[in-house]
Amino acid sequence: MSDADDLKRQVGEAAAALVENGMVVGIGTGSTANHVIDSLGERVRQGLDFVGIPTSRRSEERARALGIRIVGFDTHDRIDLTIDGADEIARGTLHLVKGLGGALLREKIVAAASRRMVVIADDSKLVDHLGSHVPVPVEVSGFGWESTARQLGGLGARVTPRQDRNGSLFVTDGGNMILDCAFAPIADPARLEAEIAAIVGVFESGLFVGRAALALVAGRDGVVRIEPE
Amino acid sequence: MSDADDLKRQVGEAAAALVENGMVVGIGTGSTANHVIDSLGERVRQGLDFVGIPTSRRSEERARALGIRIVGFDTHDRIDLTIDGADEIARGTLHLVKGLGGALLREKIVAAASRRMVVIADDSKLVDHLGSHVPVPVEVSGFGWESTARQLGGLGARVTPRQDRNGSLFVTDGGNMILDCAFAPIADPARLEAEIAAIVGVFESGLFVGRAALALVAGRDGVVRIEPE
Repeated sequence: MSDADDLKRQVGEAAAALVENGMVVGIGTGSTANHVIDSLGERVRQGLDFVGIPTSRRSEERARALGIRIVGFDTHDRIDLTIDGADEIARGTLHLVKGLGGALLREKIVAAASRRMVVIADDSKLVDHLGSHVPVPVEVSGFGWESTARQLGGLGARVTPRQDRNGSLFVTDGGNMILDCAFAPIADPARLEAEIAAIVGVFESGLFVGRAALALVAGRDGVVRIEPE
Repeated sequence: MSDADDLKRQVGEAAAALVENGMVVGIGTGSTANHVIDSLGERVRQGLDFVGIPTSRRSEERARALGIRIVGFDTHDRIDLTIDGADEIARGTLHLVKGLGGALLREKIVAAASRRMVVIADDSKLVDHLGSHVPVPVEVSGFGWESTARQLGGLGARVTPRQDRNGSLFVTDGGNMILDCAFAPIADPARLEAEIAAIVGVFESGLFVGRAALALVAGRDGVVRIEPE
């Protein structure tokens, strides 16, 4: 196991330890979230009783295979705790960029339905300003995406339609497209989130502003808890 | 031909007369828009040369069958003129409720990409306040719609998931769901449009605020032109 993977495993275990009997848990997507799922599977074998709402088909399959009970919004429309990764975490505010894995719409719907969101990452994801290292993914309608991209460009983004491994346009679980929008470091994420959301053709952006209540960040000295200032 | 249908035909012909050679034209959806398409087909037979971007598969099929050249946003990302119907038109402002036909997302994307939008209707659609007679349709993600519906209810709406003729959940061209949101008459449509758009899981609402530059409204005395006050 590489050092990086060991860090992800540590933070995944720390996050899984937050789950209590009877909870409805939002289950994130990505390599760090996979460690959460694995650790939760181990806790289920030891008797933990909870239900999960996953943010992607991949995470759903992984969780089911480990014996985690999966439910949907048809029976559970409030989530007690969501644990998910992030591509960037802003120091101080815990605003996030998410969605490089392609599941941002479901991730954001689950986060919005959650009483508490815990974000997990290694310390390479901590930044002073969002947009420093990664583009903001924006999920858009396939119909008219060229027009939507032009409007996103008007907000100052360099816009790249995401492709899959074969060079075709990437298609999300919801059947939509992702436009990766590279901004200069983002001064006012809340304002940018609202400006992006107001563009017709946009479903959701990967900016998560004011949603995370706790970050568990793995670094050389172990797992550190960070709360918004 | 019923009186109502005759009115729709008159207004359809008046709107089709606005199309000029060389234009890129957004082609709406619905019974009145069908009359526009039929009239444009007649004008094409008489030599009119334009291209159309339709707001639905139904309108695309109807237009193609009449010899209208159809293009997409891949080659044309600006539209000169869009002609579309409405379910309610607010006197004075020309703010609209649209989307009872189920095509609101594409209709809104086309309207947003248009230099000019002309709305066509019979005078039964004119109201003092939007929301007087019809619900506001909201296109939402099928994933998590129950949570999204709860948040729309928080804005004061009575929310009904739209069903198809067989009693199954209606599916839009984009693969999404429609929640019909009955509000009391809407005092501030711009504010409500923004509040709805800010809800995670919402793609677009059927509120079209500040988009129509001209209404052609058919009544007993023929077709009346109305511009925003």
